[in-house]
Amino acid sequence: MPTTVAVLVGSLRKESFSRKIAKQIAALAPSSLAFDFVAMGDLPLYDEDVEKAGAPAPWVAFRNQVRAASALLFVTPEYNRSIPGVLKNAIDVGSRPYGASVWSGKPGGVVSNSPGGIGGFGANHHLRQSLVFLDVPVLQQPEMYLSGVGSWFDDGGNVKDEKHKELLSKFATTFADWVEKHAKKS
Amino acid sequence: MPTTVAVLVGSLRKESFSRKIAKQIAALAPSSLAFDFVAMGDLPLYDEDVEKAGAPAPWVAFRNQVRAASALLFVTPEYNRSIPGVLKNAIDVGSRPYGASVWSGKPGGVVSNSPGGIGGFGANHHLRQSLVFLDVPVLQQPEMYLSGVGSWFDDGGNVKDEKHKELLSKFATTFADWVEKHAKKS
Amino acid sequence: MPTTVAVLVGSLRKESFSRKIAKQIAALAPSSLAFDFVAMGDLPLYDEDVEKAGAPAPWVAFRNQVRAASALLFVTPEYNRSIPGVLKNAIDVGSRPYGASVWSGKPGGVVSNSPGGIGGFGANHHLRQSLVFLDVPVLQQPEMYLSGVGSWFDDGGNVKDEKHKELLSKFATTFADWVEKHAKKS
Amino acid sequence: MPTTVAVLVGSLRKESFSRKIAKQIAALAPSSLAFDFVAMGDLPLYDEDVEKAGAPAPWVAFRNQVRAASALLFVTPEYNRSIPGVLKNAIDVGSRPYGASVWSGKPGGVVSNSPGGIGGFGANHHLRQSLVFLDVPVLQQPEMYLSGVGSWFDDGGNVKDEKHKELLSKFATTFADWVEKHAKKS
Repeated sequence: MPTTVAVLVGSLRKESFSRKIAKQIAALAPSSLAFDFVAMGDLPLYDEDVEKAGAPAPWVAFRNQVRAASALLFVTPEYNRSIPGVLKNAIDVGSRPYGASVWSGKPGGVVSNSPGGIGGFGANHHLRQSLVFLDVPVLQQPEMYLSGVGSWFDDGGNVKDEKHKELLSKFATTFADWVEKHAKKS
Repeated sequence: MPTTVAVLVGSLRKESFSRKIAKQIAALAPSSLAFDFVAMGDLPLYDEDVEKAGAPAPWVAFRNQVRAASALLFVTPEYNRSIPGVLKNAIDVGSRPYGASVWSGKPGGVVSNSPGGIGGFGANHHLRQSLVFLDVPVLQQPEMYLSGVGSWFDDGGNVKDEKHKELLSKFATTFADWVEKHAKKS
Repeated sequence: MPTTVAVLVGSLRKESFSRKIAKQIAALAPSSLAFDFVAMGDLPLYDEDVEKAGAPAPWVAFRNQVRAASALLFVTPEYNRSIPGVLKNAIDVGSRPYGASVWSGKPGGVVSNSPGGIGGFGANHHLRQSLVFLDVPVLQQPEMYLSGVGSWFDDGGNVKDEKHKELLSKFATTFADWVEKHAKKS
Repeated sequence: MPTTVAVLVGSLRKESFSRKIAKQIAALAPSSLAFDFVAMGDLPLYDEDVEKAGAPAPWVAFRNQVRAASALLFVTPEYNRSIPGVLKNAIDVGSRPYGASVWSGKPGGVVSNSPGGIGGFGANHHLRQSLVFLDVPVLQQPEMYLSGVGSWFDDGGNVKDEKHKELLSKFATTFADWVEKHAKKS
């Protein structure tokens, strides 16, 4: 049975490059991994008062979906030199209430990207700082700062350049090994 | 006429320490500054598709309120070694659409805090990285990593310890000078 | 045969807290690990021109010593909100020449500390950012931001408080598991 | 009389791109600024024990040279996703002994660069984190992450592409305004 990887896409845009990249990675990954895309666009902003009054249904559903996975793949753009608020809010929701984090101990991978040249470096490392606290062991290499992604895809959402496909493929394979090494056995 | 400072509080909790700290700073600041607390709890998560279809009313109101201010004060807890999603989302909303950022050029101050010992250091510097991109000149010293804030306040929300009050007061005064130096004259 | 852990201490001071902490961790660690303290005080500043003219003897010796180890333990103070230059220089020396990094693939642990309250948080995460590039898988939890270390030790260099000893002991044990999971078998 | 800007170049390499970039900025800057390049290649690694025994001559000379300047320009490559050890060591030397930092209050600019695509983003922001502590107000925009610098210069060390020259020129002008706004009047 394949290991389930929860996929967290940092952009809500329908045609987001992050989503396309995540889909390509899923398509190129070994069959030992199954990818489950987790929506985060309907999560109310985290508020501890709301938690105490009773967690809203979208928080509960989100937490359950991530909890059911054994590994984590984050694919995200950079907004203002950090991760998008939508992704940070999802991380916050999943980390609470205290002692019931859904992230803890699950191996993870981080892929950042930008239409410009820097490839989301700032977002990538801000996310990694959070993942230290959340006890998510993160794959180090290959680092994935994907730049110029505005021209990566054809109309069908497929990566056009063989070189880019090889990079995603290499990442997918290395990530699969990392997941196998770290995934909690049930 | 006093210079208006938009106050951005990173926690939605009613009794949040960040809000109490922000109020104390406002109370201790020179009369050259007027503080306008900007709510961010009702901001829909940023989504460029939504922007193109027409910005929701809360985004418009938020942007207008910040735009009307001449300076920025951020007071925030740390969630998962970074700034809360709620604050990052507000920053993202205010930064868009492209070319119409409400943050640009306004002098800012950053105060992080935690009930624990580290005082939100991670949140403080992640926020500062975003503020480089947003062209917000930020006061450097005194650095404000406020720790142990769970015991700072009496029931009326007043800082109990004279030493803490002096720190907030010193920050408020230095911040007022910084604002005066940088605020755009209208 | 135990696995050799190269210990990198970020301060040159003879009575440095970092060295004392590193020694305590070594003393508390399981016998599966052997600790080799690597000096870095005599390393000439990295300069690619010097490399091309022929690596100085201290660089060669340093590289050989780290290369012989299977894992890495960094214990460091924070200087100016980042890692000390002496430690960064050692990292740079060990990473070169291109393609011959001595760090690559070796599991690592990061312990930061300060006499003050923040425990070297800034140094800790700056170092972690370098270790991503260097392909050093780093233990995430327990995070080690040791604060107030000025009063931790008795005259013999032993940790006085049982609570502190337990923290170091827990780290040592978890680190040993991490090393075992990741150490390259020869 | 022009304002003196101490220039700190993060690479010791004779033909370093950072040095060439710094020279071009100096050449393009308004005549209100005079640039003083500060060598850091002969600074012994910082060690508090050595400080107490008597600061070595190179430390004293370095401190005096920076102290005589009214502003700071840092131009640096990225080594292992952070600033080079040589630059960090210089920062550490200049920051000590406690209470006698040579950096404090001087306006600064940060320019990072790389032959690759990311332009030294990691180095840029690590340096900025130190400069918060050191109370150096840093120019925010234009951000300077200069990429692909391996092909920027002709044999005479001049920038070939007009677009690159304009960027450096715009930075130099904006930096001069920043310095004027912040420089301590003597």
